[in-house]
Amino acid sequence: MSAVSKARVAVVGATGYAGAELVRLLTRHPGVTITVVTSERDSGRPIGEVHPNLASTRLDLVAVADAELAARADLVFTALPHGTSAALVRSLLESGLRVVDLGADFRFRDRALYEKWYGPHEAPDVMREAVYGLTEYCRDRLPEARLVANPGCYPTGALLALLPLAEHIRGHVIVDAKSGTSGAGRAADARQLYAEVADNVRPYKIAAHRHQPEIACQLESAGTGRVPVLFSPHLVPMGRGLLTVCYVDLGGLPANEVGAILHRSYRDEEFVRVLDAGYLPEPRNVRGTNRVEIGWLTDPESGLTVVVSAIDNLGKGAAGQAVQNMNAMLGAAETTALEHVAALP
Amino acid sequence: MSAVSKARVAVVGATGYAGAELVRLLTRHPGVTITVVTSERDSGRPIGEVHPNLASTRLDLVAVADAELAARADLVFTALPHGTSAALVRSLLESGLRVVDLGADFRFRDRALYEKWYGPHEAPDVMREAVYGLTEYCRDRLPEARLVANPGCYPTGALLALLPLAEHIRGHVIVDAKSGTSGAGRAADARQLYAEVADNVRPYKIAAHRHQPEIACQLESAGTGRVPVLFSPHLVPMGRGLLTVCYVDLGGLPANEVGAILHRSYRDEEFVRVLDAGYLPEPRNVRGTNRVEIGWLTDPESGLTVVVSAIDNLGKGAAGQAVQNMNAMLGAAETTALEHVAALP
Amino acid sequence: MSAVSKARVAVVGATGYAGAELVRLLTRHPGVTITVVTSERDSGRPIGEVHPNLASTRLDLVAVADAELAARADLVFTALPHGTSAALVRSLLESGLRVVDLGADFRFRDRALYEKWYGPHEAPDVMREAVYGLTEYCRDRLPEARLVANPGCYPTGALLALLPLAEHIRGHVIVDAKSGTSGAGRAADARQLYAEVADNVRPYKIAAHRHQPEIACQLESAGTGRVPVLFSPHLVPMGRGLLTVCYVDLGGLPANEVGAILHRSYRDEEFVRVLDAGYLPEPRNVRGTNRVEIGWLTDPESGLTVVVSAIDNLGKGAAGQAVQNMNAMLGAAETTALEHVAALP
Amino acid sequence: MSAVSKARVAVVGATGYAGAELVRLLTRHPGVTITVVTSERDSGRPIGEVHPNLASTRLDLVAVADAELAARADLVFTALPHGTSAALVRSLLESGLRVVDLGADFRFRDRALYEKWYGPHEAPDVMREAVYGLTEYCRDRLPEARLVANPGCYPTGALLALLPLAEHIRGHVIVDAKSGTSGAGRAADARQLYAEVADNVRPYKIAAHRHQPEIACQLESAGTGRVPVLFSPHLVPMGRGLLTVCYVDLGGLPANEVGAILHRSYRDEEFVRVLDAGYLPEPRNVRGTNRVEIGWLTDPESGLTVVVSAIDNLGKGAAGQAVQNMNAMLGAAETTALEHVAALP
Repeated sequence: MSAVSKARVAVVGATGYAGAELVRLLTRHPGVTITVVTSERDSGRPIGEVHPNLASTRLDLVAVADAELAARADLVFTALPHGTSAALVRSLLESGLRVVDLGADFRFRDRALYEKWYGPHEAPDVMREAVYGLTEYCRDRLPEARLVANPGCYPTGALLALLPLAEHIRGHVIVDAKSGTSGAGRAADARQLYAEVADNVRPYKIAAHRHQPEIACQLESAGTGRVPVLFSPHLVPMGRGLLTVCYVDLGGLPANEVGAILHRSYRDEEFVRVLDAGYLPEPRNVRGTNRVEIGWLTDPESGLTVVVSAIDNLGKGAAGQAVQNMNAMLGAAETTALEHVAALP
Repeated sequence: MSAVSKARVAVVGATGYAGAELVRLLTRHPGVTITVVTSERDSGRPIGEVHPNLASTRLDLVAVADAELAARADLVFTALPHGTSAALVRSLLESGLRVVDLGADFRFRDRALYEKWYGPHEAPDVMREAVYGLTEYCRDRLPEARLVANPGCYPTGALLALLPLAEHIRGHVIVDAKSGTSGAGRAADARQLYAEVADNVRPYKIAAHRHQPEIACQLESAGTGRVPVLFSPHLVPMGRGLLTVCYVDLGGLPANEVGAILHRSYRDEEFVRVLDAGYLPEPRNVRGTNRVEIGWLTDPESGLTVVVSAIDNLGKGAAGQAVQNMNAMLGAAETTALEHVAALP
Repeated sequence: MSAVSKARVAVVGATGYAGAELVRLLTRHPGVTITVVTSERDSGRPIGEVHPNLASTRLDLVAVADAELAARADLVFTALPHGTSAALVRSLLESGLRVVDLGADFRFRDRALYEKWYGPHEAPDVMREAVYGLTEYCRDRLPEARLVANPGCYPTGALLALLPLAEHIRGHVIVDAKSGTSGAGRAADARQLYAEVADNVRPYKIAAHRHQPEIACQLESAGTGRVPVLFSPHLVPMGRGLLTVCYVDLGGLPANEVGAILHRSYRDEEFVRVLDAGYLPEPRNVRGTNRVEIGWLTDPESGLTVVVSAIDNLGKGAAGQAVQNMNAMLGAAETTALEHVAALP
Repeated sequence: MSAVSKARVAVVGATGYAGAELVRLLTRHPGVTITVVTSERDSGRPIGEVHPNLASTRLDLVAVADAELAARADLVFTALPHGTSAALVRSLLESGLRVVDLGADFRFRDRALYEKWYGPHEAPDVMREAVYGLTEYCRDRLPEARLVANPGCYPTGALLALLPLAEHIRGHVIVDAKSGTSGAGRAADARQLYAEVADNVRPYKIAAHRHQPEIACQLESAGTGRVPVLFSPHLVPMGRGLLTVCYVDLGGLPANEVGAILHRSYRDEEFVRVLDAGYLPEPRNVRGTNRVEIGWLTDPESGLTVVVSAIDNLGKGAAGQAVQNMNAMLGAAETTALEHVAALP
């Protein structure tokens, strides 16, 4: 690919963890050039002063300016706090750019539902245009998409485990998720200090987390009818990684059929690995990658099925999937610039 | 209490984590004298060479000898691998000693069930004599008890959360537990190396862990009838600590009634703290102590109730509860030598 | 000791890590009653909402008020940021209270030196009254002391290792210290987030840390003459703990003499344990305690002596030593309420 | 590069951490094909069962067989315990293969010195042929080299910091190093369990570690004359990473000249980044990469210079440098298959 034909991309919110991971991945990408990286707080500084691992990019942070983005980029990743990207996204779309939004602003089609959980939406007219970017389930629409709403990390882990089995689900679903702390972001917060997080595991917002309606909506979109989701997130002492354990009643579907469905659903997927029976996934095995690992078992005592997935919350759970989506939007191979093999330990 | 009247206690298996924690707690106890500490592998060495924090005890490790224990101790804690304490325990009882066994050998009354999960039992005749030592539920029997089977760490966390609500449980129970790594013991095992455990969370033996039948039996003993238990343990990067999240159908019991039952059940308990509505427990808040913290909530979506407990797996989950049981056996205050306030961070 | 005769103590700055550890220790103390705990940010809240491990204390945080402290306390611990306690301390002294200050404000006798490193001093007239509270070296003065300047954590670790050998030191001293993150405090700071601290070791302020002149001054006070100190601190992923490795030229003093001097210096000390030759201390072995462990060796290649100490930065490095000092001030046994045996792991 | 021309490489000892990292890196390499991976303990198993991150390689572990290696490989990496590769290496060389040895067997030219620290050498005749593979200092010899002795992790960190300044060093050198636990290997060892390593920092083998003579020899080879090295290693709770802090007397060389020498020495190096004055390196910034970061400062108090380097002990400290050496041996770009940008956090 010649330099002339490279797509010009911008990362808005480049100093958060997802933004920085985007920059890391995009610098490896032969088909794009990063033209703009923004940060309100650190504008004017080299990105390497904030994230020393990115020093070799020699990129300088600037404040967001719609016009400059429109002039210098073809595609923009917005990695901003929830509720703050909607107006910018509309402006960028109006200028003819394409957008992958890593926040929650465009993950819902139902304005009322969004506003119940997140507050007022500043660009409700754009909501229905967005493609919900769980790549394995939306890739046909990506080449034409102008706006992709990148899924939340928790919904990514839960949906990849549950969607193949959605039609068999009876009653409610319990999703008990264990996340690394980068999922909580890079904002200074005493609750996220090392001395507060280490040597502990912290349940939080059980049955009250904003990712619960996102999971429920997507399951319903997949044709399950309404499925109550009890979502139970936990913070564990781990930088990156997300383990999602789903407890579901599949009406007695035998274990080998569960496995067969999962294997069949993902047999052609480059980033999804369904484990053999008897194995369970672990986040470390996908750390730093865009991969998903899925295991499952059935419990004869309760009759329930347990489906477990492991992703990197900053990889497939955020920046990795965003790049995968971009690749599909641009017609590049989906795997471009994405890592397959975790570095252990 | 005069020195003359101190109970003489021995710790068999004093170099494992539970054994070492027993030694730590017993050295603080004004009513006992540690007379014997044993280790097969390290006999002949000062315990402080194996556990430097115990150097000030100036105790030397010896190999187990039934006769010596009988001659030098009144009460023995056995903290041995499952299946290896039964014959010794019988011998000690025959010599007139009292025993608190921290292994699984005497936690079941049903020999067939025990042997299904653990293999042949070497002293089945003694099984039915043992008191299952969940102190809050058995203390009336402890002053007369000759043999106490100290509960497993996972059952302790699950049962303290569930027993007050047992009569309301409908259908199955899901117990999703997150344990610190000391629960896996001190044996050299490549899977437990720092570099394998850090930066990860590892599900294991879901629906296949030996603590599942222990939980189920005790629930049934509490009058629930048979309750299928789906037990789902995880290893997290945490030295000590155990968070247990139970998902149960209580038939629509309102949240305030759930809370009222929990508060009422434990209002006189020195070591159990039921949190106010809206708070969830965390293992760090009870680290190094014998305390239990319990929180709860109801989910209107699924209709389920979530009950969460936090303990220290080596405290209330092992050595702390063993000392609490000993205190009750000896007629001492249950709180003697046990810690109430965690050292944070 | 009857309730009537208990000393009334206050903790000013009770929500920082050192302040919270003070509260934890003081609640175990039979000779004192905590009457006031202060916090500017969290005044009005129960301390248990900020530090759940302290919930059982049932203490409520208040804002600092000199008059209230004077009315309700006999002795005050001030655990405030550097530079902010001087005026308060003078006021408390004038009201007849005694003070243990855990900040740096009264650790120097030389105002100019203090102000070079810390900025203007608000109560310079009080500076020379303070006793530098390295208990093992100042206890004779404590029964009469009105104001004790509790040493910094790094100086405590370095001085306990070096002072017995001070007269033999030639040339400079290198102090390479590795601290747990609670030493950096509980303030929200993105650099101290779990995701920034874990899986790393961070050198900082080498040859530029404020504890360097504190170490140098105290060595000089011990009669070494002026000793240049190259102080090199590091942050490691550890909640509590401080390992201090000192490299010194003792003019060829043989290893056995080094050991003999150390053993002799500390043979009567309850909290100092000099290890046998061939052993090195580790912070985990003193975690949660007021203990110090010291090891040493000589290197025939370079001719240097290496002296290593381990403390808990919040124990002997802060709150533990403050309570030890208070005990000596009040005429209580120095060991009262202080822990000797670490809880491992 | 066509498939036909790919070099065939084998990894002997592929289940240790360095061996597994070699496999990870080599699978990314367009110019090589991994033909054999060996493990004595796990022969017959897919490597993905031992290291799940490598499952996609679909390689099966075999036991070592000299003839098979000779038949199926052009170049062999030996990643075996010290003392066990010498005979195999001689055999491979005699069969015309090239070898990069990651153990210590060929790092010394002086047999007596080797045997003093490591015991009898089984192929002393081959010792003098080996090139000491600190790539930046030996690359001219690599295209012709048959045997490369890959440096130890600690010597790599120390020498990259010190060699540019070697001619200025006066007297001894102190090297205080802080290593991640993967440096201790993957063997089951109770001292390396998570519960033993976490929340601690452990000094070990100060002035007695085998890497001390390796550092000293290489400094001497660089023309310093004999320099006594006091080497002081520490284990910190970190999976990968190595921070090396060197304290040296450079005879008053000013800070800006120190910086100028360092910058000049490495200005053309792709993997070495000398930081600007005022910055210090951290292992996390090079984690997973083959990079080295170097910082420095001078201390006016002591007159000493401090030079600090950060590497990934499995990257530049082992497998990364081994691949860099292989690249130079094969005439490929040194950077091929090696990572430049760390994934944070």
